[in-house]
Amino acid sequence: MSDEKKAAKHKASMEKQKESVDASIAAADEERGLIILLTGDGKGKSSSAFGMVMRSLGYGYKVGVVQFIKGAQLSGEEIFIRDKHPEVYFYQMGTGFTWDTQDRDGDIAAAEATWAHAEKLLKDDSYHLVVLDEMTYMLAFKYLDEERILTALQQRPREQTVVVTGRGGGKGIRDIADTVAEINDQKHAYRAGVKARKGVDF
Amino acid sequence: MSDEKKAAKHKASMEKQKESVDASIAAADEERGLIILLTGDGKGKSSSAFGMVMRSLGYGYKVGVVQFIKGAQLSGEEIFIRDKHPEVYFYQMGTGFTWDTQDRDGDIAAAEATWAHAEKLLKDDSYHLVVLDEMTYMLAFKYLDEERILTALQQRPREQTVVVTGRGGGKGIRDIADTVAEINDQKHAYRAGVKARKGVDF
Repeated sequence: MSDEKKAAKHKASMEKQKESVDASIAAADEERGLIILLTGDGKGKSSSAFGMVMRSLGYGYKVGVVQFIKGAQLSGEEIFIRDKHPEVYFYQMGTGFTWDTQDRDGDIAAAEATWAHAEKLLKDDSYHLVVLDEMTYMLAFKYLDEERILTALQQRPREQTVVVTGRGGGKGIRDIADTVAEINDQKHAYRAGVKARKGVDF
Repeated sequence: MSDEKKAAKHKASMEKQKESVDASIAAADEERGLIILLTGDGKGKSSSAFGMVMRSLGYGYKVGVVQFIKGAQLSGEEIFIRDKHPEVYFYQMGTGFTWDTQDRDGDIAAAEATWAHAEKLLKDDSYHLVVLDEMTYMLAFKYLDEERILTALQQRPREQTVVVTGRGGGKGIRDIADTVAEINDQKHAYRAGVKARKGVDF
């Protein structure tokens, strides 16, 4: 095919694609906050939530982050928010992974105390974005009552977006979510013997 | 089951999980930068890359971001980096999606000019993290020569991590990547008629 023909073919194909993209954009006209579930066993659930934090901060929106499980080990996102963006509401459960503590009653008490922070944010319409990092484990382990969580998520302010991360999470949260992205682990450096990396994995 | 029995059972199961997690951690002892490919059709590829940017900035590492395709429309991450973190090296191709331009030669020239920025970062060992956002499309559309890209990625400094995002990308980049996460779109608010959201989607 001549270069000229190639260019013409490309143009025609791109025109078609543009029509289809434009039509979808025109059809999506409801404006409101979302429930986004980032799940699966692959890398990038929490990172993705923090990318949205960055976006919202770019526009000057108020952001709240509640980290379940995480917090026993220092992370880059923790340092970044605490040192450089103290305007973000930030709370960590801070008890480490539950397989480190091995204490079910202690975990439940910590989960409840952490949930209280989440609940406060979910009632405050000044927050544009609320991240509930690793919250699905609280449901999976039955540390928190599912019904109560789902109700609080659904009754949040209309303009507020809430991002929930973590593997699993169950049918209930999938059903009420507007967007569900499942991150599949196709290959992981960790399995090839490479250590978790500062600034990348934590 | 009594509460006491439940707690004991939980403890035993968590102990087992801890052993398995500890063993994997001990086995992963190589320390070096990674090639990470974030692909698939779901929400969160670029967001996840920006979450890693946040992590690296937390530790005070140098970060470079090159955005292919994006840049014609203003985004939260662009405002955030330009206004609040000018220490990040940031370059955008800025020609909009290729189905908007419908000009193959112009796209190729823009892709080459953008790649020059990526190449510079991939040769500079002062950068801990380099994000090549939406770069897979340059390969899919054959705007850039695959062999040259793969060689540059592989010859980058040993301690540098590079994150490539975008749908597809082909076998070549999957093969050289250390970590590949595929983000699957299980549900998307967009399809239910909800408009893309500021601070969340862009």
